[in-house]
Amino acid sequence: MAERIIRIAIDAMGGDNAPKVLVEGAVEAVNAYDDVEIVLVGERTSVSSCLDAELGKSDASGGRGDGSERVWFDNRISLVHADETIGMDESPARAIRRKKNASVVVANRLCKSGKVSAVIAAGSTGAAMASSLLQMGRLKGVQRPAIMSVFPSKKNTICVIDVGANVDCKSEHLYQFGVMASIYMKQVLGYEKPRVGLLSIGEERKKGNELTIEAYGLFEKSDLNFIGNIEGRDVFEGIADVVVCDGFVGNVLLKFGESMFGFVTYMLKRHINGRPLRKTAALMMKPVFRDIRKDMSPENYGGAPLLGVDGISIICHGNSSARAVRNAVKVARQLVIEGVNEKIKNELSHASIKTNE
Amino acid sequence: MAERIIRIAIDAMGGDNAPKVLVEGAVEAVNAYDDVEIVLVGERTSVSSCLDAELGKSDASGGRGDGSERVWFDNRISLVHADETIGMDESPARAIRRKKNASVVVANRLCKSGKVSAVIAAGSTGAAMASSLLQMGRLKGVQRPAIMSVFPSKKNTICVIDVGANVDCKSEHLYQFGVMASIYMKQVLGYEKPRVGLLSIGEERKKGNELTIEAYGLFEKSDLNFIGNIEGRDVFEGIADVVVCDGFVGNVLLKFGESMFGFVTYMLKRHINGRPLRKTAALMMKPVFRDIRKDMSPENYGGAPLLGVDGISIICHGNSSARAVRNAVKVARQLVIEGVNEKIKNELSHASIKTNE
Repeated sequence: MAERIIRIAIDAMGGDNAPKVLVEGAVEAVNAYDDVEIVLVGERTSVSSCLDAELGKSDASGGRGDGSERVWFDNRISLVHADETIGMDESPARAIRRKKNASVVVANRLCKSGKVSAVIAAGSTGAAMASSLLQMGRLKGVQRPAIMSVFPSKKNTICVIDVGANVDCKSEHLYQFGVMASIYMKQVLGYEKPRVGLLSIGEERKKGNELTIEAYGLFEKSDLNFIGNIEGRDVFEGIADVVVCDGFVGNVLLKFGESMFGFVTYMLKRHINGRPLRKTAALMMKPVFRDIRKDMSPENYGGAPLLGVDGISIICHGNSSARAVRNAVKVARQLVIEGVNEKIKNELSHASIKTNE
Repeated sequence: MAERIIRIAIDAMGGDNAPKVLVEGAVEAVNAYDDVEIVLVGERTSVSSCLDAELGKSDASGGRGDGSERVWFDNRISLVHADETIGMDESPARAIRRKKNASVVVANRLCKSGKVSAVIAAGSTGAAMASSLLQMGRLKGVQRPAIMSVFPSKKNTICVIDVGANVDCKSEHLYQFGVMASIYMKQVLGYEKPRVGLLSIGEERKKGNELTIEAYGLFEKSDLNFIGNIEGRDVFEGIADVVVCDGFVGNVLLKFGESMFGFVTYMLKRHINGRPLRKTAALMMKPVFRDIRKDMSPENYGGAPLLGVDGISIICHGNSSARAVRNAVKVARQLVIEGVNEKIKNELSHASIKTNE
């Protein structure tokens, strides 16, 4: 049986170190996964010169032809030209409508037209999200696609959904976030019955705001492995594998959490304060701090999927490394292989009947 | 001119180490502040035996009389008997109505009747809040009292308001939180023009949910030193002295932040992992970790005031130490001396005219 080829588009122009790290990540990915082909979308000259440089480091072959018809790495990396980019300071909704040839827009169009199965973007989160929503559209049955972010915890890897796609939510949306993330955790991370916790301000079912109290009822009736409300302090404890909240709360939490390491570093410096013995101790601790930083890096998790769109869209940090890009490819590939979107569709058409009972 | 005496009630039965640490904190407070008198509210026998034990350590004199008429420490500590307590697992609203003689209820009643100017409680936050709201009532002009919590940051001490009193808010409530906390920061912590930031998911005025976008307009028109939206990552940066959010978001943030130290400790242990060199380094770092823990301890800030009630109510952690209780007395005393409630009333009657223009 012929192996299925999974084609993934990468917006080569987004992020702090574009196109270099995107190209490097693409090369790492084709080396890591035999069944993956990458379409790099970006400005022809700069992307192809990065690819040529990567080619010089390896023994793979570059194809022939000009511009967008050239291929690299035994035909497994190709280039689609897109000469516009969307800046971090632009209004995403306006920019993706005005700049029809922005790399992120072109990449999402490739997915819409079926030329690729997934899109990876590391530039403006807003532009990546808006572009996927507009071009891919929603999966049947999904009311609101949501961004899922993976976190470390004391127990195992957990996820928080939504971390910014939907600021004002209805209870049904939260319920759907729980369904989508549970399927992801099961299919991509191998959790048998992901424990779903509703982020609130107390354990009791009546603790919370109108939204969470209503959502509690939906979760309770569902087939999900719902463990009830969890509080802010429970996130890092890992008592829930899936932490459900609206995109406002999730975004505040995510960004607050990301600032934690910087704050701890600041506190360390402040209390080491040039004192020789403390400085020596800190130097000796460096490998520990380095390992913690590595352990907590968002790179490990390969970006945040926008779940619920009719396609696969992975949004990476603006400062992603090649390793982060490769891991995003790994996740995208897994989402395709496991047919996660198909499962979300099935589950939500099935489940919405039940919650409407 | 005779010095004004400030009478403060302490719920002696609340918290993990009651009544011992509450009594110790009371003794520390009367030693620290000449103008403070403390009324301990709690079960007669256990509180007075703790007081007698403290008396044995000092050269102050205990008064005469039985039960609630006894006084200690040169008449500066007295006892009001209250034989019920409210557990952490009870529904606060129901418990304070049913248990008329619970220590926290009696303490708040003393404030209502003018026998004390402030109440400090370290047991169930919900019971302390509900009891203050019910007995003290709201300050004129205040729509929703809110709990303010003080945080460390990279720059200076900051505060977050509301951290749990109001889960579903209107924009006007958020605006009032900003006013109340600004007055606190000015009068209690000495900030000349506290910078007020609205917690949201992006800096631009249009970024946020319906609530914050509407609140932005109110803040902008106000006399506050409003610096615009801030994000989760900006909290620890200290770019705002007052971080305003609804009580749901604030509570999640507070509890998530409080769990941070435990998570970092866990990560350290995990990466030290018994390796001898790393263990030695960690041992040498102990004084640094101890100093950081001390620096970040909520004890430093003397509990969280419930701002906007017609009285002074300070809510302390359940695990408060004597030092935390003494610091709560310090804050309560300052709130009385600076006439913070008077200033809140003036500002809000003045300000609500303006925002209704």
